[in-house]
Amino acid sequence: MRIALAQINTTVGDIAGNEQLIADRIEAAREQGAAVVLLPELAITGYPPEDLLLKEHFLADARAAIDRLAAQTRGIVAMVGFPERDSTNVYNSAAILRDGAIAHIYRKVHLPNYGVFDEQRYFASGPRSGSSIDVNGVRLGLTICEDIWIPGPPETIEARDGARIILNISASPYHVGKGLEREAMVRKRATDNDAAFVFCALVGGQDELLFDGQSFAVDRRGDLIARAPQFVEHMLICDVDPDGTGRTTQIAPLLETDEEIYAALVLGTRDYVTKNGFEHVVIGLSGGVDSTLVALVAVDALSADRVTCVTMPSRYSSEGTRGDAHALAANLGVELLELPIENARTAYDEMLAGTFNGREPDLTEENLQARIRGNLLMALSNKFGWLVLTTGNKSEMSVGYSTLYGDSAGGFAVIKDVPKQLVYRLVAARRRRDPQHDPVPDTVVTRPPSAELRADQRDDDSLPPYEVLDAILEGYVEEDLGREALIARGLPPDDVDRVIRLVDLAEYKRRQNPPGIKITEKAFGRDRRVPITNRYRG
Amino acid sequence: MRIALAQINTTVGDIAGNEQLIADRIEAAREQGAAVVLLPELAITGYPPEDLLLKEHFLADARAAIDRLAAQTRGIVAMVGFPERDSTNVYNSAAILRDGAIAHIYRKVHLPNYGVFDEQRYFASGPRSGSSIDVNGVRLGLTICEDIWIPGPPETIEARDGARIILNISASPYHVGKGLEREAMVRKRATDNDAAFVFCALVGGQDELLFDGQSFAVDRRGDLIARAPQFVEHMLICDVDPDGTGRTTQIAPLLETDEEIYAALVLGTRDYVTKNGFEHVVIGLSGGVDSTLVALVAVDALSADRVTCVTMPSRYSSEGTRGDAHALAANLGVELLELPIENARTAYDEMLAGTFNGREPDLTEENLQARIRGNLLMALSNKFGWLVLTTGNKSEMSVGYSTLYGDSAGGFAVIKDVPKQLVYRLVAARRRRDPQHDPVPDTVVTRPPSAELRADQRDDDSLPPYEVLDAILEGYVEEDLGREALIARGLPPDDVDRVIRLVDLAEYKRRQNPPGIKITEKAFGRDRRVPITNRYRG
Repeated sequence: MRIALAQINTTVGDIAGNEQLIADRIEAAREQGAAVVLLPELAITGYPPEDLLLKEHFLADARAAIDRLAAQTRGIVAMVGFPERDSTNVYNSAAILRDGAIAHIYRKVHLPNYGVFDEQRYFASGPRSGSSIDVNGVRLGLTICEDIWIPGPPETIEARDGARIILNISASPYHVGKGLEREAMVRKRATDNDAAFVFCALVGGQDELLFDGQSFAVDRRGDLIARAPQFVEHMLICDVDPDGTGRTTQIAPLLETDEEIYAALVLGTRDYVTKNGFEHVVIGLSGGVDSTLVALVAVDALSADRVTCVTMPSRYSSEGTRGDAHALAANLGVELLELPIENARTAYDEMLAGTFNGREPDLTEENLQARIRGNLLMALSNKFGWLVLTTGNKSEMSVGYSTLYGDSAGGFAVIKDVPKQLVYRLVAARRRRDPQHDPVPDTVVTRPPSAELRADQRDDDSLPPYEVLDAILEGYVEEDLGREALIARGLPPDDVDRVIRLVDLAEYKRRQNPPGIKITEKAFGRDRRVPITNRYRG
Repeated sequence: MRIALAQINTTVGDIAGNEQLIADRIEAAREQGAAVVLLPELAITGYPPEDLLLKEHFLADARAAIDRLAAQTRGIVAMVGFPERDSTNVYNSAAILRDGAIAHIYRKVHLPNYGVFDEQRYFASGPRSGSSIDVNGVRLGLTICEDIWIPGPPETIEARDGARIILNISASPYHVGKGLEREAMVRKRATDNDAAFVFCALVGGQDELLFDGQSFAVDRRGDLIARAPQFVEHMLICDVDPDGTGRTTQIAPLLETDEEIYAALVLGTRDYVTKNGFEHVVIGLSGGVDSTLVALVAVDALSADRVTCVTMPSRYSSEGTRGDAHALAANLGVELLELPIENARTAYDEMLAGTFNGREPDLTEENLQARIRGNLLMALSNKFGWLVLTTGNKSEMSVGYSTLYGDSAGGFAVIKDVPKQLVYRLVAARRRRDPQHDPVPDTVVTRPPSAELRADQRDDDSLPPYEVLDAILEGYVEEDLGREALIARGLPPDDVDRVIRLVDLAEYKRRQNPPGIKITEKAFGRDRRVPITNRYRG
């Protein structure tokens, strides 16, 4: 039994485009001798379509596309995800297309409603009794994504009429190491149920979510017999026997952790830019490690000729950072504009002198500099149609160490879910890739981090050292631990209290930040929904 | 049977403060001879606590507060909402406190997971079999909010062991006319079930949500026998007999529609400002109708001495709008700062001249003016600790007729859910209240709307007339209708296509806007979750 897994990159809302992509893959699978081809969960609409699912005409358009695909499907059985409207409910369903018609519909049972997921907002559950189809006399069990994450029906062979091959179509968002988590889970399911599992994954970026691909198949013993590469479209061919044994076809190697994260950022950035119709991006380049990483990712995602960098020096910009910004841009082959900000700074100082009436400079003036830079980048965006990529990392975003409407101003926040220490690791990974043509000046990573918004400023003037900060943040933000649990880990109580307070108070800023790519277990945004008005501390 | 409904204004996360408020109300109800006192849904945590519910220590703190309240409760039965942790799940529960202990716990059955609600993210459902308590030999059925919105168990008397008095504790967010919707629904439930219903509501603002109060009771015939006023804390005393009949105690009159909406904006603004610890707000006053409404609301919410207005004229500001801004500020008795923006404008023009290299002025320069104003307001905010109230209305937000980081920059967007035509109605309603001291110059409402960002600009240069725009937006945004359905309503096809496109393209801007008060059936924000990356049109 040859089963083809079409790991495709859909676009949300592009029903016509997705339909064409699916039709092409069905045909390609047929040509490769597959009896069955799988397409990802909700392939016809893209995932997640969110509140588009509340539009009746959207559901009707999606159904019409499935009907057209069915009519064209000959000589192969295709399993395609789509939102199914019946008289009372909407289901997250898979259509089985064969012989020119919809032969069967399977409805997802387990609807995730945690983390980034809102599926119970849209869908009703299918019956737990499960379902299966027969293809060439072989029984195949049907499941969608979450159905196989929860032990018990419908993923069991009992609920699949004894099928020893279980098909699964998924749209499973990435975080670090998620691919191996999926494989480990499915291998366990296979041995528990004494059945082969075939897992077809979505690939591509959608707003804050990134789908990493890595479709795969395991035999009934839980051994991997096929795996598609990460972060690219692919057609994975699996050969599985009716009894759940199989032969190895292709097992793509996995990227090392930091390379994997870097690849996630590249694909997430490329897809956000191109799916939203932008040709070109612009980045404020400070000479620091954060904007360096964003520039590296942007060039790898789009090529150098589609990236413009801007250096916007002030009286506090050091020769070192300015020089590094120029060197990096030159090494990458990207255009670099230089727009000094002192003129505007002076104008604001004069405009506000009467109102501020001799008060000492403070954060106000620091923020104004960051906002002038934000304005300049947005002016370039407005004039030339470029998308502004922002450069704030997760550690800064967490504690509000950024200027709202300043450095956080832009369309896409590439590294908003990357903690500061990981920023360094990712730059190092990128430099290792081709040491002969390393574009990054050493001083970018050896200089102590500074926002350069006042004289002799350093991040560690106002924040704990990043190794402490990142450890507190991981516990507080990603694990929902409280003060006592963090202190019990050996973290300094004063830093814990301060960081908790800063994280809570910065929620209003994060709510106004652009989207960026989720790479950790819990990203800011729809993954972590906390109130702004909130008196709880800890 | 005397039942007291404690309509209180809780603060999310302020467990100690809410506990004290609840203890005070229990004591007050006892002194008024009530046998039972109801507190709102999740009263101990505030509503909605969102992802605070994922913190185990938060749940433990809430439980400890309920235990303390129970120990103090003598001579009265109290029903208090709290998040209940058992070994496997969390429930949205009501504790029945009596004789110094938790005598009973009721678990909410129907968990809303649509619109602004995410309750299935946090809670498991209680059993549909329902439950009841006996007080002085009278059987009382227990329900929480949504439980009585869906016909059938658990709100039926069959599921309540024959109780002819059904208690309900709620946290039901406001939209226009919601109070009467609730009353109509509950009156129908009463006659359907031949039982009295007693409905205790939350009051107060929480980020984008506003709870309007208006607790009430109906007898078994569905007749109203008690109603608390809207938008204020109140203790409503209800006298209900064991057979579900009752006597009228107090029926507060309802506000007329526009007065009701205005009152919602006032309370929502006051609570956001004070619950977040601000003493003072600042508003950019253009002399237009939008900023006029925001200034009126702010003064009514906080008093004139806690409001500063700023007029920031440019070369395009007319004498008319400048004069109106000054007159309004003087009439309201608020401080008015004047900060002309031409200096900064010139500085930006010079800084960008080389890069823009003789290109014609366009939206770029208009946006820069709005951003300079945003920067000045944020500088005042930074220097003096003031909260910036933004002045964009829903019609503008819908079509992106605003400048990101410009006029949309600030902490709270008072009228973001108020369509333009309603803005005029609300200003008119406020002016009618005391015509002898009407603070609003007539020209504010008679002058054609303009952003004044270029010479002789008018809103209707780039947008359909507001009566057409608002009609399209109501259908497209609030009702999820598509192109064909809108055209079938008689709306111009060209305008429909254009507005749909503008609404979809502006999603990235709205994602970066501050929160504001939901007053319509569907507000932007958590009420309407659409993807930014989205190729679907219609």
